[in-house]
Amino acid sequence: MVKVKVVEQVTKANDQIASQNQALLDGSGTFAVNLMASPGAGKTSLLMRTVEVLRDRLRIGAIEGDTASQVDADRVATTGIPVVQINTGGGCRLDANMLRPALQELPLEELDLLLIENVGNLVCPAGLALGQHADVVIASVPEGDDKPYKYPGIFVAVDAIVINKIDLLPYLEFDVRAFRELVGGMNPEAQIFEVSCETDEGIEEWAGWLASQCGRDS
Amino acid sequence: MVKVKVVEQVTKANDQIASQNQALLDGSGTFAVNLMASPGAGKTSLLMRTVEVLRDRLRIGAIEGDTASQVDADRVATTGIPVVQINTGGGCRLDANMLRPALQELPLEELDLLLIENVGNLVCPAGLALGQHADVVIASVPEGDDKPYKYPGIFVAVDAIVINKIDLLPYLEFDVRAFRELVGGMNPEAQIFEVSCETDEGIEEWAGWLASQCGRDS
Repeated sequence: MVKVKVVEQVTKANDQIASQNQALLDGSGTFAVNLMASPGAGKTSLLMRTVEVLRDRLRIGAIEGDTASQVDADRVATTGIPVVQINTGGGCRLDANMLRPALQELPLEELDLLLIENVGNLVCPAGLALGQHADVVIASVPEGDDKPYKYPGIFVAVDAIVINKIDLLPYLEFDVRAFRELVGGMNPEAQIFEVSCETDEGIEEWAGWLASQCGRDS
Repeated sequence: MVKVKVVEQVTKANDQIASQNQALLDGSGTFAVNLMASPGAGKTSLLMRTVEVLRDRLRIGAIEGDTASQVDADRVATTGIPVVQINTGGGCRLDANMLRPALQELPLEELDLLLIENVGNLVCPAGLALGQHADVVIASVPEGDDKPYKYPGIFVAVDAIVINKIDLLPYLEFDVRAFRELVGGMNPEAQIFEVSCETDEGIEEWAGWLASQCGRDS
């Protein structure tokens, strides 16, 4: 009973701070997207490709979440957009309290879109409020098409699902149709995109959807 | 302060049950290995390939950990070895208390080697005692060679690191030498194996090491 009570208090405190974060983002007209995926599914690559495609249409910033290091922030910084690294110190996800100081370091008034790259994890980040306006999970072809069976919590709680690394489909067993049917049954509202950051296939469609989401709120 | 105290109590309780689990395994002469990796790194495939290679030398059983579903246990059951699925109900790792009833369901007296497949996660399972005798992390070529920077906690706390899916090296950027140097600096004692469950490259070496580990304790 004690343990449950502590968890409830922590969640409630997180949600309050998440609301404040979202109010801050709404005040500056910044649409925030929470990008989640397994380690190595291509979150940073997709984020960077998205920046390159949308930078003429939108002013973009990024937050990079990792348990340690700032290799991702260093990579993203090469695009020239404002970026802040959050190290969770071993924690398996970002939370609203970690996001708050990162938001204060960013020039939000100058940003239309904020891409938040969560810690690589298909379990912990699912359904947690940070202040974001949309949640996206990236599924990578090499991971196999059965992940929604094993990690349903994250697939049911997102606005979009991106199937990444489709250039590797010729070399791997991944049944795109079966995957689409599976996640379509779990989360019929979710948009599904098939992309490759190597060949650029599908990137324009994904980026167009993101831009339309920003427009909806601005 | 209250929160920290609760976490300490939970860890202490886990470690006590883990000791009991290990005593049970030692009593039956069963060597237990905790397999950890990202979702889709190939834990189940490697486990099944290991069973096929070692089944004439060792009596093997398996425990499959997932947040939901029993697709992995169903796959492993096709090899004919005893297997138990643990669903964590959303939890991001196995713990000692989850393992206990699973151990009671297995014919431990008839097993030399128990392969425990943890929940797909590079953060939560790191360093947690279940009762296992050895910890292994599987790194998959499509994830990229930079994961040890971002998830150091798991790479420093294992006895062996398996680089899986090396058949995909021609199609992806993964610098095996740089990866070996990186993890070698973080964890000089860890054995490193390069394997492919598609081509069987390196499987015999990995399986031989596992068998030698069992021999050490039997």
